[in-house]
Amino acid sequence: MKEERMPFYAVKEFVADIFKNAGLNAAHSEIIADSLICAEARGIKSHGLVRVSTYVSRMECGATNKNANYRIEKIKGAAALLDADNGFGQVAAYYGSKLAVTLAKRYGTGVVGIKNSNHFGIASYYAMLISDNDMIGIVSTNSSPAIAPFGSYIPLLGTNPLAVSIPSKTKKPIVLDMSASVVARGKIRLAKLKNEKIPIGWALDPYGKDTDDPDLALKGSLLPIGGPKGSGLSLVIDLICGVLTGSSFTGEVKNVTDMSGPSKTGHIIMALDISCFNDVNKFKRDIDRVIKKIKSLPSVNNSEIFLPGEIENNAEEKAKSEGIILDPKVREELNKLADKYNLNKIL
Amino acid sequence: MKEERMPFYAVKEFVADIFKNAGLNAAHSEIIADSLICAEARGIKSHGLVRVSTYVSRMECGATNKNANYRIEKIKGAAALLDADNGFGQVAAYYGSKLAVTLAKRYGTGVVGIKNSNHFGIASYYAMLISDNDMIGIVSTNSSPAIAPFGSYIPLLGTNPLAVSIPSKTKKPIVLDMSASVVARGKIRLAKLKNEKIPIGWALDPYGKDTDDPDLALKGSLLPIGGPKGSGLSLVIDLICGVLTGSSFTGEVKNVTDMSGPSKTGHIIMALDISCFNDVNKFKRDIDRVIKKIKSLPSVNNSEIFLPGEIENNAEEKAKSEGIILDPKVREELNKLADKYNLNKIL
Ligand SMILES: NC(=O)c1ccc[n+]([C@@H]2O[C@H](COP(=O)([O-])OP(=O)(O)OC[C@H]3O[C@@H](n4cnc5c(N)ncnc54)[C@H](O)[C@@H]3O)[C@@H](O)[C@H]2O)c1
Ligand SMILES: NC(=O)c1ccc[n+]([C@@H]2O[C@H](COP(=O)([O-])OP(=O)(O)OC[C@H]3O[C@@H](n4cnc5c(N)ncnc54)[C@H](O)[C@@H]3O)[C@@H](O)[C@H]2O)c1
Repeated sequence: MKEERMPFYAVKEFVADIFKNAGLNAAHSEIIADSLICAEARGIKSHGLVRVSTYVSRMECGATNKNANYRIEKIKGAAALLDADNGFGQVAAYYGSKLAVTLAKRYGTGVVGIKNSNHFGIASYYAMLISDNDMIGIVSTNSSPAIAPFGSYIPLLGTNPLAVSIPSKTKKPIVLDMSASVVARGKIRLAKLKNEKIPIGWALDPYGKDTDDPDLALKGSLLPIGGPKGSGLSLVIDLICGVLTGSSFTGEVKNVTDMSGPSKTGHIIMALDISCFNDVNKFKRDIDRVIKKIKSLPSVNNSEIFLPGEIENNAEEKAKSEGIILDPKVREELNKLADKYNLNKIL
Repeated sequence: MKEERMPFYAVKEFVADIFKNAGLNAAHSEIIADSLICAEARGIKSHGLVRVSTYVSRMECGATNKNANYRIEKIKGAAALLDADNGFGQVAAYYGSKLAVTLAKRYGTGVVGIKNSNHFGIASYYAMLISDNDMIGIVSTNSSPAIAPFGSYIPLLGTNPLAVSIPSKTKKPIVLDMSASVVARGKIRLAKLKNEKIPIGWALDPYGKDTDDPDLALKGSLLPIGGPKGSGLSLVIDLICGVLTGSSFTGEVKNVTDMSGPSKTGHIIMALDISCFNDVNKFKRDIDRVIKKIKSLPSVNNSEIFLPGEIENNAEEKAKSEGIILDPKVREELNKLADKYNLNKIL
């Protein structure tokens, strides 16, 4: 029973219904449900349906504004600033992606900054919305403190993911979606749960020492990839998403679970119209060639080589055709919400 | 005598004179000299004056076109494609940066792709040209094979640096300039020279095994930062710089030392006009605040904490005021070129 796969679209509608019944309008509820089920289906469960109850709670206590007026505050040529009015990051970034595509159609490129937003889930969701239009999508967000600037041990920088989605001709897009830390906090939490040690190099303890103890790691800071490189990447993303847009920055973005008020998160969304640089068909054929070339390289352990996003693309395809397996705890939470809003339970 | 500091501007003019006497026009010679001395002064000696003789040789044998006609092949709104006509990467990227700034002044953002180019030295040089205009500069290039796609051990991806330069109010800009490998090949060469082992995690041997032997590492592949993350970053940069612009890609970019013909390198240059998103003064004051905040964090070893680019900014300032120390081998090469072109020797 626990391993039963549930139909993808039914789960998605169920999630949308929860948001609708919690008071969000239908269009916005559909956007949030679509982005969450996308993360779940792609195997990025940390940003999937496990987030529903937190998002609903934020809405209910007013930490996120369910009646937000997402509006363009500034626009000049190919650059725009969107004010999310403390609404959902998903809705703001969805509109931002559509706007970036519109701008890129006209100007060859479009850059949309988003201010006063909240947690938007996975960055690749929006990058893929863009790459569906024969464009390259580049998306980032800042986030709550997790990584210390290189040389320090005070977590001040978010894991600030960067997503780039690049369309191909006959395959799914190449989708890089990476945070700047060696591992996500979720992996350390898992080790703690299993009573396992973590490898040195994942995190520092609260005093700045290397640690293999997941407990100390969770109280300390995540280590960035490549030392000053990952730390620098996280910083410049924070400055573009946070300072440039006029949102919170370096340590001031509130965690999504902090219900005390707006998280003041910032995002940046860019679209590059391929046709302004190259013949679209040639471009996409060349991406196909690259995929084929990389897939056929000899591998370190005779195991399959994957392109960025390929594992996630495969998982999404499988989930769409065969259904989704929900974690028991997540299902329980969803059913509680169903009870609350007098919806049919999911199982 | 060997440690003597030589006046910054005199060395720069000397280098420009070499290029002029090798047949390059004055304006282009000045651009190349300025970018090379900038790298040298910033302590990025691997991309500094050590490159002069290679660049000159390329010109002389026609591998790089000294009479290149750098021209805009396509332009639409804020997006342009520049054909470098197999000229110098430095000149193409200089023009590309100026064009990106012009476009961003008009459209809020500007993106310039450059095709048929060659090695352009350090990416941050161009990003800083942009950030001098109250804009954020983002610059990348693809490069010759060095890193294997994650899971393989065949070096197919370049170290493909990404530079981001962000202006502040009272300080030098924050300048991230990072390649996607854990270390540059230069560090492994140095270990070999000193007969030292290298740490596991820097490189793979030619058969895909971890190695601490610099010799095997140099025959193998460099490891990317964060495994699939650095490898993915390098790949998407290659696809944008190479495939999008119509240049060479994945393994086909020739090394700068390969004189057999054009390297067909591609670059991408983006400018974001800060004023289209935020008040420029507020933005720059906020960047100052971030710098101050990070500089005053407690540090792991009670040592100074540096912002991205700060060590390089300091080195450049010192070189400009106190002069430049040339490596004896580099000085010898430069003096040989002086002899050849009947210039006064540098020392
Ligand atoms: N909203 C926020 O505040 C926030 C913050 C951080 C992360 N996130 C999201 O969390 C998600 C997970 O981020 P992450 O950094 O932990 O991702 P990850 O480490 O799982 O994957 C990073 C990248 O590497 C690729 N990859 C992974 N294994 C691979 C393999 N074996 N071969 C080839 N490629 C491989 C993936 O496709 C992906 O592009 C992302 O979707 C990100 O947007 C969101
Ligand atoms: N043209 C090409 O094909 C090509 C290819 C690769 C690299 N490059 C250039 O080579 C240069 C070196 O690249 P790299 O990746 O080896 O650089 P690096 O590892 O020396 O530095 C990477 C980044 O980390 C920062 N940094 C380093 N030490 C730090 C510290 N202690 N505290 C805080 N920040 C610190 C630097 O300021 C820089 O922004 C770059 O300029 C790059 O553009 C060019």
